[in-house]
Amino acid sequence: MSTTPRARVGRPRATAGSTQLAPRDEILDAAAALFVENGFAATTTRAIAERIGIRQASLYYHFAGKDDILVELLERTVRPSVEFAKTLREDPSLASAAALHTLAVRDVETLAAAPHNIGTLYLLPEANRDRFDGFRASRRELRDAYGAFAMDAATDALRATWTLAELGAAIIHLVEIVIPLRRDGEMIDAVRIADACLRLCGLDDAAIAAATGR
Amino acid sequence: MSTTPRARVGRPRATAGSTQLAPRDEILDAAAALFVENGFAATTTRAIAERIGIRQASLYYHFAGKDDILVELLERTVRPSVEFAKTLREDPSLASAAALHTLAVRDVETLAAAPHNIGTLYLLPEANRDRFDGFRASRRELRDAYGAFAMDAATDALRATWTLAELGAAIIHLVEIVIPLRRDGEMIDAVRIADACLRLCGLDDAAIAAATGR
Repeated sequence: MSTTPRARVGRPRATAGSTQLAPRDEILDAAAALFVENGFAATTTRAIAERIGIRQASLYYHFAGKDDILVELLERTVRPSVEFAKTLREDPSLASAAALHTLAVRDVETLAAAPHNIGTLYLLPEANRDRFDGFRASRRELRDAYGAFAMDAATDALRATWTLAELGAAIIHLVEIVIPLRRDGEMIDAVRIADACLRLCGLDDAAIAAATGR
Repeated sequence: MSTTPRARVGRPRATAGSTQLAPRDEILDAAAALFVENGFAATTTRAIAERIGIRQASLYYHFAGKDDILVELLERTVRPSVEFAKTLREDPSLASAAALHTLAVRDVETLAAAPHNIGTLYLLPEANRDRFDGFRASRRELRDAYGAFAMDAATDALRATWTLAELGAAIIHLVEIVIPLRRDGEMIDAVRIADACLRLCGLDDAAIAAATGR
Protein backbone atom coordinates (compact mmCIF):
# COMPACT_ATOMS: atom_id res chain seq x y z
CA MET A 1 0.00 0.00 0.00
CA SER A 2 2.77 2.38 0.93
CA THR A 3 4.44 4.46 -1.73
CA THR A 4 7.37 5.31 0.52
CA PRO A 5 10.70 4.97 -1.22
CA ARG A 6 12.70 2.35 0.61
CA ALA A 7 15.27 4.13 2.75
CA ARG A 8 18.31 2.44 4.14
CA VAL A 9 17.75 0.58 7.40
CA GLY A 10 20.22 1.11 10.20
CA ARG A 11 21.30 3.90 12.51
CA PRO A 12 21.42 6.98 10.35
CA ARG A 13 21.69 9.20 13.45
CA ALA A 14 25.45 8.64 13.45
CA THR A 15 25.85 9.28 9.74
CA ALA A 16 24.54 12.81 9.26
CA GLY A 17 20.90 12.19 8.32
CA SER A 18 19.14 14.33 5.78
CA THR A 19 17.28 16.29 8.47
CA GLN A 20 18.25 18.14 11.62
CA LEU A 21 15.35 16.74 13.63
CA ALA A 22 15.69 14.79 16.87
CA PRO A 23 14.82 11.10 16.36
CA ARG A 24 11.44 11.47 18.06
CA ASP A 25 10.56 14.45 15.87
CA GLU A 26 11.79 12.66 12.79
CA ILE A 27 9.39 9.79 13.52
CA LEU A 28 6.54 12.27 14.04
CA ASP A 29 7.36 14.04 10.80
CA ALA A 30 7.51 10.84 8.74
CA ALA A 31 4.31 9.53 10.33
CA ALA A 32 2.49 12.81 9.65
CA ALA A 33 3.49 12.65 5.99
CA LEU A 34 2.30 9.06 5.63
CA PHE A 35 -0.94 9.51 7.59
CA VAL A 36 -1.87 12.54 5.52
CA GLU A 37 -0.89 10.95 2.18
CA ASN A 38 -2.16 7.41 2.65
CA GLY A 39 -4.47 7.49 5.67
CA PHE A 40 -3.95 6.26 9.21
CA ALA A 41 -5.20 2.70 8.74
CA ALA A 42 -3.06 2.13 5.65
CA THR A 43 0.14 3.30 7.35
CA THR A 44 2.20 0.78 9.31
CA THR A 45 4.85 1.54 11.93
CA ARG A 46 7.18 -0.36 9.64
CA ALA A 47 6.49 2.04 6.78
CA ILE A 48 7.19 4.96 9.13
CA ALA A 49 10.47 3.42 10.29
CA GLU A 50 11.51 2.62 6.72
CA ARG A 51 10.81 6.14 5.55
CA ILE A 52 13.48 7.54 7.85
CA GLY A 53 15.79 4.56 7.71
CA ILE A 54 15.51 3.27 11.27
CA ARG A 55 14.53 -0.15 12.55
CA GLN A 56 10.96 -0.72 13.71
CA ALA A 57 12.38 -1.51 17.16
CA SER A 58 13.90 1.97 17.33
CA LEU A 59 10.51 3.47 16.62
CA TYR A 60 9.01 1.46 19.49
CA TYR A 61 11.70 2.86 21.76
CA HIS A 62 10.09 6.28 21.28
CA PHE A 63 6.40 5.40 20.85
CA ALA A 64 4.24 2.51 22.06
CA GLY A 65 2.51 2.43 18.66
CA LYS A 66 0.72 4.25 15.90
CA ASP A 67 -2.00 5.61 18.19
CA ASP A 68 0.59 7.30 20.40
CA ILE A 69 2.14 8.95 17.38
CA LEU A 70 -1.23 10.26 16.21
CA VAL A 71 -2.06 11.51 19.73
CA GLU A 72 1.21 13.44 19.86
CA LEU A 73 0.72 14.86 16.36
CA LEU A 74 -2.81 16.03 17.15
CA GLU A 75 -1.80 17.52 20.49
CA ARG A 76 0.94 19.49 18.77
CA THR A 77 -1.72 21.25 16.68
CA VAL A 78 -3.54 22.40 19.82
CA ARG A 79 -1.20 22.59 22.82
CA PRO A 80 0.82 25.69 21.78
CA SER A 81 -2.40 27.66 21.36
CA VAL A 82 -3.80 26.41 24.70
CA GLU A 83 -0.62 27.58 26.43
CA PHE A 84 -0.68 30.89 24.58
CA ALA A 85 -4.31 31.44 25.62
CA LYS A 86 -3.23 31.05 29.26
CA THR A 87 -0.56 33.73 28.97
CA LEU A 88 -3.07 36.05 27.28
CA ARG A 89 -5.59 35.47 30.06
CA GLU A 90 -3.00 36.42 32.64
CA ASP A 91 -2.41 39.82 31.05
CA PRO A 92 -4.88 42.20 32.77
CA SER A 93 -4.04 45.05 30.39
CA LEU A 94 -5.32 43.11 27.39
CA ALA A 95 -8.98 43.56 26.38
CA SER A 96 -10.86 40.39 25.43
CA ALA A 97 -11.28 41.43 21.80
CA ALA A 98 -7.54 42.02 21.48
CA ALA A 99 -6.78 38.72 23.23
CA LEU A 100 -9.14 36.84 20.91
CA HIS A 101 -7.56 38.45 17.86
CA THR A 102 -4.00 37.72 19.03
CA LEU A 103 -4.85 34.11 19.87
CA ALA A 104 -6.52 33.57 16.50
CA VAL A 105 -3.50 34.95 14.63
CA ARG A 106 -1.12 32.70 16.56
CA ASP A 107 -3.38 29.67 16.13
CA VAL A 108 -3.71 30.17 12.37
CA GLU A 109 0.07 30.48 12.12
CA THR A 110 0.56 27.27 14.15
CA LEU A 111 -1.83 25.34 11.90
CA ALA A 112 -0.32 26.83 8.75
CA ALA A 113 3.17 25.78 9.88
CA ALA A 114 2.23 22.28 11.09
CA PRO A 115 4.17 19.64 9.15
CA HIS A 116 2.19 17.99 6.37
CA ASN A 117 -1.02 19.75 7.37
CA ILE A 118 -1.68 17.32 10.19
CA GLY A 119 -4.83 19.21 11.13
CA THR A 120 -6.58 17.08 8.49
CA LEU A 121 -6.14 14.11 10.84
CA TYR A 122 -8.50 15.52 13.42
CA LEU A 123 -11.63 14.18 11.73
CA LEU A 124 -10.24 10.67 11.28
CA PRO A 125 -12.58 8.02 12.71
CA GLU A 126 -9.58 6.76 14.69
CA ALA A 127 -9.28 10.11 16.50
CA ASN A 128 -12.72 9.54 17.98
CA ARG A 129 -11.61 6.63 20.18
CA ASP A 130 -11.03 6.77 23.95
CA ARG A 131 -7.29 6.84 23.41
CA PHE A 132 -7.73 10.38 22.11
CA ASP A 133 -9.69 11.71 25.08
CA GLY A 134 -6.69 13.80 26.15
CA PHE A 135 -6.43 15.48 22.77
CA ARG A 136 -10.15 16.16 22.67
CA ALA A 137 -9.96 17.65 26.17
CA SER A 138 -7.13 19.95 25.04
CA ARG A 139 -9.15 21.01 22.03
CA ARG A 140 -12.19 21.73 24.21
CA GLU A 141 -9.93 23.82 26.44
CA LEU A 142 -8.87 25.87 23.41
CA ARG A 143 -12.47 26.15 22.22
CA ASP A 144 -13.52 27.41 25.65
CA ALA A 145 -10.65 29.90 25.76
CA TYR A 146 -11.92 31.28 22.45
CA GLY A 147 -15.46 31.21 23.84
CA ALA A 148 -14.53 33.10 27.01
CA PHE A 149 -12.70 35.87 25.13
CA ALA A 150 -15.48 35.99 22.53
CA MET A 151 -18.38 36.18 25.00
CA ASP A 152 -16.63 39.00 26.79
CA ALA A 153 -15.90 40.84 23.54
CA ALA A 154 -19.29 40.19 21.92
CA THR A 155 -22.18 42.58 21.52
CA ASP A 156 -25.15 42.19 23.87
CA ALA A 157 -27.34 40.90 21.05
CA LEU A 158 -24.91 38.08 20.37
CA ARG A 159 -24.38 37.20 24.00
CA ALA A 160 -28.14 36.82 24.39
CA THR A 161 -28.38 34.06 21.79
CA TRP A 162 -25.07 32.17 21.85
CA THR A 163 -23.54 30.12 24.64
CA LEU A 164 -19.84 30.33 25.39
CA ALA A 165 -19.30 26.81 24.04
CA GLU A 166 -21.19 27.55 20.82
CA LEU A 167 -19.37 30.78 20.14
CA GLY A 168 -16.07 29.10 20.94
CA ALA A 169 -16.93 26.28 18.53
CA ALA A 170 -17.80 28.72 15.74
CA ILE A 171 -14.54 30.61 16.22
CA ILE A 172 -12.21 27.62 16.53
CA HIS A 173 -13.75 26.23 13.37
CA LEU A 174 -13.32 29.52 11.55
CA VAL A 175 -9.64 29.54 12.59
CA GLU A 176 -9.28 25.96 11.37
CA ILE A 177 -10.32 27.03 7.89
CA VAL A 178 -6.57 27.09 7.21
CA ILE A 179 -6.56 23.28 7.21
CA PRO A 180 -8.80 22.70 4.15
CA LEU A 181 -7.47 25.86 2.50
CA ARG A 182 -3.92 24.66 2.84
CA ARG A 183 -4.90 21.26 1.56
CA ASP A 184 -6.35 22.91 -1.55
CA GLY A 185 -3.16 24.97 -2.00
CA GLU A 186 -4.83 28.21 -0.95
CA MET A 187 -4.35 30.51 2.01
CA ILE A 188 -5.98 33.47 3.75
CA ASP A 189 -3.67 35.54 5.91
CA ALA A 190 -3.93 35.15 9.67
CA VAL A 191 -4.94 38.74 10.38
CA ARG A 192 -7.97 38.62 8.12
CA ILE A 193 -9.13 35.35 9.67
CA ALA A 194 -8.70 36.89 13.13
CA ASP A 195 -10.69 39.93 11.96
CA ALA A 196 -13.43 37.55 10.84
CA CYS A 197 -13.48 36.03 14.35
CA LEU A 198 -14.20 39.48 15.79
CA ARG A 199 -16.88 40.08 13.17
CA LEU A 200 -18.49 36.83 14.28
CA CYS A 201 -18.74 38.38 17.77
CA GLY A 202 -20.73 41.27 16.28
CA LEU A 203 -17.87 43.81 16.21
CA ASP A 204 -17.90 46.33 13.38
CA ASP A 205 -14.88 47.68 11.49
CA ALA A 206 -14.32 50.53 13.94
CA ALA A 207 -14.39 48.19 16.94
CA ILE A 208 -12.04 45.76 15.20
CA ALA A 209 -9.64 48.58 14.38
CA ALA A 210 -9.74 49.74 18.00
CA ALA A 211 -9.20 46.24 19.37
CA THR A 212 -6.23 45.57 17.14
CA GLY A 213 -4.65 49.02 17.46
CA ARG A 214 -4.92 49.74 13.74
CA MET B 1 -10.95 -5.26 11.73
CA SER B 2 -14.70 -4.77 11.16
CA THR B 3 -17.08 -4.84 14.10
CA THR B 4 -20.11 -5.30 11.87
CA PRO B 5 -22.49 -7.92 13.19
CA ARG B 6 -22.77 -10.67 10.59
CA ALA B 7 -26.06 -10.28 8.82
CA ARG B 8 -27.71 -12.99 6.81
CA VAL B 9 -26.46 -13.28 3.25
CA GLY B 10 -29.01 -13.60 0.50
CA ARG B 11 -31.68 -11.53 -1.12
CA PRO B 12 -33.44 -9.75 1.73
CA ARG B 13 -35.22 -7.43 -0.71
CA ALA B 14 -37.87 -10.09 -1.16
CA THR B 15 -38.28 -10.77 2.55
CA ALA B 16 -39.23 -7.39 4.01
CA GLY B 17 -35.87 -5.95 5.00
CA SER B 18 -35.45 -3.85 8.12
CA THR B 19 -35.33 -0.60 6.15
CA GLN B 20 -37.46 1.06 3.48
CA LEU B 21 -34.45 2.16 1.42
CA ALA B 22 -33.86 1.25 -2.20
CA PRO B 23 -30.98 -1.24 -2.57
CA ARG B 24 -28.60 1.44 -3.83
CA ASP B 25 -29.43 3.73 -0.91
CA GLU B 26 -29.14 0.85 1.51
CA ILE B 27 -25.60 0.21 0.28
CA LEU B 28 -24.75 3.90 0.63
CA ASP B 29 -26.19 4.00 4.14
CA ALA B 30 -24.29 0.92 5.31
CA ALA B 31 -21.07 2.16 3.71
CA ALA B 32 -21.43 5.58 5.33
CA ALA B 33 -21.85 3.98 8.75
CA LEU B 34 -18.78 1.78 8.30
CA PHE B 35 -16.58 4.50 6.77
CA VAL B 36 -17.42 6.87 9.61
CA GLU B 37 -17.01 4.25 12.35
CA ASN B 38 -13.97 2.36 11.11
CA GLY B 39 -12.40 4.49 8.41
CA PHE B 40 -12.39 4.11 4.65
CA ALA B 41 -9.28 1.96 4.31
CA ALA B 42 -10.42 -0.50 7.00
CA THR B 43 -13.84 -1.01 5.38
CA THR B 44 -14.20 -3.68 2.68
CA THR B 45 -17.00 -3.96 0.13
CA ARG B 46 -17.61 -7.38 1.68
CA ALA B 47 -18.21 -5.80 5.10
CA ILE B 48 -20.66 -3.37 3.49
CA ALA B 49 -22.52 -6.17 1.73
CA GLU B 50 -22.63 -8.29 4.88
CA ARG B 51 -24.01 -5.45 6.94
CA ILE B 52 -27.16 -5.31 4.85
CA GLY B 53 -27.30 -9.01 4.07
CA ILE B 54 -26.60 -8.96 0.35
CA ARG B 55 -23.93 -10.74 -1.67
CA GLN B 56 -20.82 -8.83 -2.64
CA ALA B 57 -21.78 -9.42 -6.28
CA SER B 58 -25.05 -7.55 -5.69
CA LEU B 59 -23.09 -4.59 -4.37
CA TYR B 60 -20.95 -4.60 -7.51
CA TYR B 61 -24.13 -4.48 -9.58
CA HIS B 62 -24.76 -1.01 -8.14
CA PHE B 63 -21.21 0.32 -7.65
CA ALA B 64 -17.89 -0.37 -9.35
CA GLY B 65 -16.17 -0.25 -5.96
CA LYS B 66 -15.55 1.51 -2.69
CA ASP B 67 -14.32 4.70 -4.36
CA ASP B 68 -17.57 5.06 -6.27
CA ILE B 69 -19.54 4.71 -3.07
CA LEU B 70 -17.47 7.40 -1.35
CA VAL B 71 -17.82 9.71 -4.36
CA GLU B 72 -21.59 9.34 -4.28
CA LEU B 73 -21.73 9.87 -0.50
CA LEU B 74 -19.62 13.01 -0.70
CA GLU B 75 -21.58 14.40 -3.64
CA ARG B 76 -24.80 13.93 -1.70
CA THR B 77 -23.49 16.32 0.94
CA VAL B 78 -22.94 19.05 -1.65
CA ARG B 79 -25.19 18.55 -4.67
CA PRO B 80 -28.53 19.55 -3.08
CA SER B 81 -27.04 22.85 -1.93
CA VAL B 82 -25.46 23.52 -5.34
CA GLU B 83 -28.85 23.00 -6.98
CA PHE B 84 -30.57 25.16 -4.37
CA ALA B 85 -28.03 27.95 -4.94
CA LYS B 86 -28.97 27.91 -8.64
CA THR B 87 -32.66 28.38 -7.91
CA LEU B 88 -31.84 31.22 -5.51
CA ARG B 89 -29.70 32.91 -8.14
CA GLU B 90 -32.56 32.78 -10.62
CA ASP B 91 -34.88 34.69 -8.28
CA PRO B 92 -34.41 38.39 -9.16
CA SER B 93 -36.52 39.54 -6.20
CA LEU B 94 -34.10 38.02 -3.70
CA ALA B 95 -31.31 40.24 -2.32
CA SER B 96 -27.87 38.65 -2.03
CA ALA B 97 -27.84 38.79 1.76
CA ALA B 98 -31.20 37.02 1.91
CA ALA B 99 -30.04 34.45 -0.64
CA LEU B 100 -26.86 33.79 1.33
CA HIS B 101 -28.84 33.34 4.53
CA THR B 102 -31.39 31.02 2.93
CA LEU B 103 -28.67 28.91 1.30
CA ALA B 104 -26.73 28.62 4.55
CA VAL B 105 -29.83 27.49 6.46
CA ARG B 106 -30.63 24.84 3.85
CA ASP B 107 -27.00 23.68 3.70
CA VAL B 108 -26.71 23.34 7.49
CA GLU B 109 -29.93 21.33 7.49
CA THR B 110 -28.66 19.06 4.72
CA LEU B 111 -25.41 18.39 6.59
CA ALA B 112 -27.24 17.89 9.88
CA ALA B 113 -29.55 15.33 8.26
CA ALA B 114 -26.86 13.45 6.30
CA PRO B 115 -26.72 9.79 7.36
CA HIS B 116 -23.95 8.98 9.80
CA ASN B 117 -22.45 12.47 9.52
CA ILE B 118 -20.73 11.65 6.26
CA GLY B 119 -19.34 15.17 6.08
CA THR B 120 -16.47 13.87 8.23
CA LEU B 121 -15.31 11.89 5.19
CA TYR B 122 -14.42 15.00 3.23
CA LEU B 123 -10.96 15.35 4.79
CA LEU B 124 -10.03 11.70 4.23
CA PRO B 125 -6.72 11.35 2.38
CA GLU B 126 -8.56 9.13 -0.08
CA ALA B 127 -10.90 11.99 -1.01
CA ASN B 128 -7.90 13.92 -2.33
CA ARG B 129 -7.29 11.57 -5.26
CA ASP B 130 -8.14 12.27 -8.90
CA ARG B 131 -11.18 10.01 -8.67
CA PHE B 132 -12.76 12.70 -6.50
CA ASP B 133 -12.19 15.61 -8.88
CA GLY B 134 -15.92 15.75 -9.64
CA PHE B 135 -16.82 16.06 -5.99
CA ARG B 136 -14.20 18.74 -5.41
CA ALA B 137 -15.50 20.64 -8.44
CA SER B 138 -19.04 20.51 -7.01
CA ARG B 139 -17.78 21.76 -3.67
CA ARG B 140 -15.91 24.61 -5.36
CA GLU B 141 -19.12 25.46 -7.18
CA LEU B 142 -20.94 25.71 -3.84
CA ARG B 143 -18.08 27.73 -2.33
CA ASP B 144 -18.23 30.16 -5.24
CA ALA B 145 -22.01 30.45 -4.95
CA TYR B 146 -21.51 31.45 -1.32
CA GLY B 147 -18.71 33.78 -2.38
CA ALA B 148 -20.81 35.50 -5.06
CA PHE B 149 -23.75 36.12 -2.72
CA ALA B 150 -21.35 37.20 0.06
CA MET B 151 -19.31 39.63 -2.05
CA ASP B 152 -22.52 41.25 -3.23
CA ALA B 153 -23.90 41.46 0.31
CA ALA B 154 -20.63 42.51 1.98
CA THR B 155 -19.65 45.95 3.19
CA ASP B 156 -17.22 47.94 1.05
CA ALA B 157 -14.45 47.49 3.64
CA LEU B 158 -14.73 43.74 3.41
CA ARG B 159 -14.96 43.65 -0.36
CA ALA B 160 -11.72 45.62 -0.53
CA THR B 161 -9.72 42.97 1.34
CA TRP B 162 -11.29 39.60 0.53
CA THR B 163 -11.60 37.83 -2.80
CA LEU B 164 -14.77 36.03 -3.77
CA ALA B 165 -13.06 32.64 -3.37
CA GLU B 166 -11.71 33.52 0.07
CA LEU B 167 -14.99 34.80 1.39
CA GLY B 168 -16.77 31.79 -0.06
CA ALA B 169 -14.25 29.50 1.63
CA ALA B 170 -14.72 31.21 5.00
CA ILE B 171 -18.49 30.91 4.74
CA ILE B 172 -18.67 27.32 3.51
CA HIS B 173 -16.36 26.35 6.35
CA LEU B 174 -18.49 28.20 8.88
CA VAL B 175 -21.56 26.35 7.59
CA GLU B 176 -19.68 23.06 7.85
CA ILE B 177 -19.17 23.64 11.56
CA VAL B 178 -22.20 21.35 11.95
CA ILE B 179 -20.00 18.38 10.99
CA PRO B 180 -17.60 18.47 13.98
CA LEU B 181 -20.38 19.74 16.27
CA ARG B 182 -22.59 16.84 15.35
CA ARG B 183 -19.72 14.46 15.82
CA ASP B 184 -19.26 15.81 19.35
CA GLY B 185 -22.99 15.43 20.02
CA GLU B 186 -23.60 19.18 19.95
CA MET B 187 -25.57 21.44 17.63
CA ILE B 188 -26.11 25.11 16.80
CA ASP B 189 -29.34 25.91 15.03
CA ALA B 190 -29.20 26.68 11.32
CA VAL B 191 -30.51 30.23 11.60
CA ARG B 192 -27.79 31.34 14.00
CA ILE B 193 -25.10 29.85 11.79
CA ALA B 194 -26.62 31.64 8.80
CA ASP B 195 -26.68 34.88 10.85
CA ALA B 196 -22.97 34.35 11.56
CA CYS B 197 -22.33 34.05 7.80
CA LEU B 198 -23.86 37.49 7.32
CA ARG B 199 -21.82 38.88 10.22
CA LEU B 200 -18.74 37.55 8.46
CA CYS B 201 -19.71 39.76 5.50
CA GLY B 202 -19.66 42.78 7.80
CA LEU B 203 -23.43 43.09 8.27
CA ASP B 204 -24.66 44.37 11.64
CA ASP B 205 -27.73 43.19 13.54
CA ALA B 206 -30.03 45.70 11.84
CA ALA B 207 -28.85 44.68 8.37
CA ILE B 208 -29.21 40.98 9.27
CA ALA B 209 -32.73 41.57 10.56
CA ALA B 210 -33.61 43.44 7.36
CA ALA B 211 -32.11 40.74 5.13
CA THR B 212 -33.97 37.95 6.87
CA GLY B 213 -37.26 39.80 7.29
CA ARG B 214 -37.19 39.62 11.07
